[in-house]
Amino acid sequence: MVNQVQRGDGSWQSCKSDSSGASNSGGESSKESSRCSTPVLDADRSDRLRDKMRKRTESGDCWFSLEFFPPRTASGAVNLISRFDRMGSGGPLFIDITWHPAGDPGSDKETSSMMIASTAVNYCGLESILHLTCCNQTKEKITGYLAKAKHLGLKNIMALRGDPVGADWEEEEGGFNHAVDLVQHIRSEFEDYFDICVAGYPTGHPEAESYEEDLRHLKEKVDAGADFVITQLFFRADTFLKFLDDCRAIGITCPILPGIFPIQGYQSLRQLVNLSKLEVPEEITEVIEPIKDNDAAIRNYGIQQAVEMCRVLLDSGKVPGLHFYTLNREVATMEVLRQLGLWIEDPRRPLPWAVSAHPKRKVEDVRPIFWASRPKSYIYRTQDWDEFPNGRWGNSSSPAFGELNDYYLFYLKSKSSKDALQQMWGEELKNEESVYEVFTCYITAQENQSGHKVKCLPWNDEPLAPETNLLKDELEKVNRRGVLTINSQPNINGKPSTDPVAGWGPAGGYVFQKAYLEFFTSSENVTALLKVLKKYEPRVNYHIVNVHGRNLTNAPDMQPNAVTWGIFPGREIVQPTVVDPVSFMFWKDEAFALWIEQWANLYEDESPSRMIIKYIHDNYFLVNLVDNDFPLESCLWQVIDDMFELLDAPPETHHDGEVSE
Amino acid sequence: MVNQVQRGDGSWQSCKSDSSGASNSGGESSKESSRCSTPVLDADRSDRLRDKMRKRTESGDCWFSLEFFPPRTASGAVNLISRFDRMGSGGPLFIDITWHPAGDPGSDKETSSMMIASTAVNYCGLESILHLTCCNQTKEKITGYLAKAKHLGLKNIMALRGDPVGADWEEEEGGFNHAVDLVQHIRSEFEDYFDICVAGYPTGHPEAESYEEDLRHLKEKVDAGADFVITQLFFRADTFLKFLDDCRAIGITCPILPGIFPIQGYQSLRQLVNLSKLEVPEEITEVIEPIKDNDAAIRNYGIQQAVEMCRVLLDSGKVPGLHFYTLNREVATMEVLRQLGLWIEDPRRPLPWAVSAHPKRKVEDVRPIFWASRPKSYIYRTQDWDEFPNGRWGNSSSPAFGELNDYYLFYLKSKSSKDALQQMWGEELKNEESVYEVFTCYITAQENQSGHKVKCLPWNDEPLAPETNLLKDELEKVNRRGVLTINSQPNINGKPSTDPVAGWGPAGGYVFQKAYLEFFTSSENVTALLKVLKKYEPRVNYHIVNVHGRNLTNAPDMQPNAVTWGIFPGREIVQPTVVDPVSFMFWKDEAFALWIEQWANLYEDESPSRMIIKYIHDNYFLVNLVDNDFPLESCLWQVIDDMFELLDAPPETHHDGEVSE
Repeated sequence: MVNQVQRGDGSWQSCKSDSSGASNSGGESSKESSRCSTPVLDADRSDRLRDKMRKRTESGDCWFSLEFFPPRTASGAVNLISRFDRMGSGGPLFIDITWHPAGDPGSDKETSSMMIASTAVNYCGLESILHLTCCNQTKEKITGYLAKAKHLGLKNIMALRGDPVGADWEEEEGGFNHAVDLVQHIRSEFEDYFDICVAGYPTGHPEAESYEEDLRHLKEKVDAGADFVITQLFFRADTFLKFLDDCRAIGITCPILPGIFPIQGYQSLRQLVNLSKLEVPEEITEVIEPIKDNDAAIRNYGIQQAVEMCRVLLDSGKVPGLHFYTLNREVATMEVLRQLGLWIEDPRRPLPWAVSAHPKRKVEDVRPIFWASRPKSYIYRTQDWDEFPNGRWGNSSSPAFGELNDYYLFYLKSKSSKDALQQMWGEELKNEESVYEVFTCYITAQENQSGHKVKCLPWNDEPLAPETNLLKDELEKVNRRGVLTINSQPNINGKPSTDPVAGWGPAGGYVFQKAYLEFFTSSENVTALLKVLKKYEPRVNYHIVNVHGRNLTNAPDMQPNAVTWGIFPGREIVQPTVVDPVSFMFWKDEAFALWIEQWANLYEDESPSRMIIKYIHDNYFLVNLVDNDFPLESCLWQVIDDMFELLDAPPETHHDGEVSE
Repeated sequence: MVNQVQRGDGSWQSCKSDSSGASNSGGESSKESSRCSTPVLDADRSDRLRDKMRKRTESGDCWFSLEFFPPRTASGAVNLISRFDRMGSGGPLFIDITWHPAGDPGSDKETSSMMIASTAVNYCGLESILHLTCCNQTKEKITGYLAKAKHLGLKNIMALRGDPVGADWEEEEGGFNHAVDLVQHIRSEFEDYFDICVAGYPTGHPEAESYEEDLRHLKEKVDAGADFVITQLFFRADTFLKFLDDCRAIGITCPILPGIFPIQGYQSLRQLVNLSKLEVPEEITEVIEPIKDNDAAIRNYGIQQAVEMCRVLLDSGKVPGLHFYTLNREVATMEVLRQLGLWIEDPRRPLPWAVSAHPKRKVEDVRPIFWASRPKSYIYRTQDWDEFPNGRWGNSSSPAFGELNDYYLFYLKSKSSKDALQQMWGEELKNEESVYEVFTCYITAQENQSGHKVKCLPWNDEPLAPETNLLKDELEKVNRRGVLTINSQPNINGKPSTDPVAGWGPAGGYVFQKAYLEFFTSSENVTALLKVLKKYEPRVNYHIVNVHGRNLTNAPDMQPNAVTWGIFPGREIVQPTVVDPVSFMFWKDEAFALWIEQWANLYEDESPSRMIIKYIHDNYFLVNLVDNDFPLESCLWQVIDDMFELLDAPPETHHDGEVSE
């Protein structure tokens, strides 16, 4: 009954849900189209890395990838995760993390390769390759690392021998002697679960008997089950292109990606040459030697050299992607990629929130709005779920959210130091109004009383998002008066999905939002607010809660309320954000705790400043408001105005002369 | 952590998904608000009948119900189902079907009570009560009937003794002697699955020893597990009100609903009196005797008498609903209900398509658009599914649709006779254009060549829906030229959900649609159409198929495309209609078969008329088009225009003199 379907472009495919085909039928596959910034693309979201490579090779859409090494310190870990977020927005197809046995790379420490790679996948939404070296390792240990990687959500391994310990290393019987042994082991123990990458050496491995011998060794690794090759760095395009031709000539058919290393400084180049045993070509030394004391000039030259070399590689038509050795630095790599036109300047989001790349989360497409500024916390608190909501929120069984016991996990903690936070949030607080002022300065980006810009708040580790910036004036007004906003979005009535501020998802669609406002405020305000809200029913939905869990809502049947949705060509509706009364009760614990964990803890025990924050924590309410009538201008500011008007109104006199409010 | 929530109106409820509470928080519960016409309401959809009654009693929203008896003939069954659809639109809370042992009431015949009640539930979306009598029945037989009823989707039973066979009936040991035995049996075998209704007699059962004895008997039935009482008819309001007070006085607390019988004629009243052994009060006989030969006058009087009596009942404040003995007739009952203001004139749809009331379908809220005019067929072909799509179409496992082997099932066949169809569709067809003309007359509602109005087509058993009527002119144009449309909808960009033509769902929301067009057309047209469609990618999605299954589509990844959706206060997005490439292949079998089953079969074998229809069946294609850009005016008419322009264009000359198209 159901047979092959001929697609509009003439190709045939079987009539079943099939993820083949570009997400744009017949249109250009341009950066403005459906190409989104994170590697977790709409159509590609379920694809494994080698399939993503295959599709992009077929469509001619060149990619880049980035290699990092694990940090040495805990604060280094925090910085590296921020770097992942920043560099991730430029659109790498994948990143990889190197492995160094001396650094306890398979442990749970925040400095381990395993934890860094896992964080990149889970919290930064980046397709990631974990390097793994095998020499001096037992099979059990290796299998243990692989199983742990799989559990954490890692899907790709770069299989390496590593540097054997000891000068005269002898081959072990039944041990891992070469990378090919590791490739075989992975395929034997885990079958096709992992995509496997191996290393190639364009001028032959330093320890190989000959260039040809090393080529055969590479073929062995690929035949054993590797999916693609990343090469050692090189200095001339034709070095790589020759190597590529030689690989093809002996029957290596998988993708072979060049490793690009922009020269960053004179000493770093010399170090590199010692380690890699490569020769620096004359044309490079000629330029570098004269300027060897001028690191800035060398960096500029390094960028130019890399750009020219990459252009030749790309123009050959044989190089589908470029792999960059970043040395954990941003500037040079980003500059090279920009000049090549590969860096995505205006990243488009597949969804309004940061997607996680853990395989079990691949169908996740709806979340409560409350964690909009704390997506990593959301991922953390839901990490034990087996299934993730898709399509609708309400119909998935909502298991409980995990507790957030540690606000200082390296991927959760603030990027600012305690000193910086004190400068921003007040060395000393006089009263509640001091707190209001901090919020106001955050909104307006103006300096606070001690001359510092407030760049973050406990609930928002970044400055105001562009979309929220649209509401700046209204937000300032209300924060001044003690409506302390921590989350908001404007109403949107069908903007194109390519809108630079509000857009998300594939191009050609339309995005919508209901106006939303979430804030802390005093119980006096809440009393007035409740009276005002009666007039706005049922247009405005609200939920009001204090730290003890006492709460009120008019959510019909406690059902989730859609607040963001999009309509796209040829697709079902996407509804990525809801206001869910049940989740709000879990969120509130975190929202209230942040007063204490991040702010109160800046001050001494029993200090007046601490008591002020504690008072707010104990007595204020957290309020969320939704204006359901999204085609109309948001009425939420009027609701707040009405509340203040009621508070400011003189008390009424009763006919019997008694004063009442 | 999560405790009680105080709702906006001050009442408390526990913080879990809870279906208590009106769908309108704080607003009026008016007919214009969220009250929808079918008993399968939005918020109430999962409620059992006694809970719906409780809620409506609490909110003071009076209801009505309708009683029918099973038909005697197959065509009577077809007519009764139509009556259910018509009377169902007025908003009965439930209907019930009487049980008569002589009529094989538990069988699969279309005239059986069981099948009629099942059809009302499954195909007409009406909450239904199946009467069941127990005397002269074994327990096994009764259990069998109940199990069958449950399997078919029936949830409510009216437990009756029935009329014992034989003049001197003696009580059986261990048999069913009284209705109370049946109530006990149902509760014992099926626990709380069914809602159970029992009969009450406002002047006492004719066979009871005394009025008081009969009251005690009623209490027994209620204590045994009945949920509510429906009474025998009566002629005076105070007869019922006294009975009601007496029931309450002896501790019967469940709802007691008055049975209303509008007097429809002199003979029918006399018959009724004989059967029920009731006395007609003087004030009624005084009016009726003089006009006993004037049935029209008696009907009018009957309506007035019923209206006055019902007003008194409702004004007492003790009567939450009225139960009408329709005798399978519409006019009198509808008139009474209209005068009482209980009949819903402008029914609002909870969803754009007719909902089924089978319990296993209660979460169903998305369907492919193809069955928009054949919802009963859709229900039939999906009756074996265990789960039904909710929220999204694509993520439910789509099992195969059942085959449609019998186009003449009583709830599927056309209401028009074969003769009427021939008059509408042509006693004799000359050519394909004769067929085009039939379609055109259907669209324009003008008479065909033999002076008959074309009130239906094989794919649409009703005249053009109001929404389609908006597109009448464009539809006429294209049908004239052989684009034979069988389904369409205009684009809608956020109309209020209360819009009389396009609206659905709760009030206060907005509904949206993508423009949609589905038609049969020749393969020559399809060739031109495919060229035209290239220009419209990716704005227009298409799927084109012939009877043999040869098909082309540009649906990205064969995914379903949302074509109707709505946003409502406090709710997640509802997306009730999609264009699904996979389902289209199942629909096409039915769409093509209808040419033969309904049209070709009107003619003799081998006749020219039959050959013409068969030619169309074998050679034409079925096309569906979606314009994804719903905020813009639909481009689909332009697509068709462009296709005709291409067809009409003179052939191009090649440079070598050859003519090509």
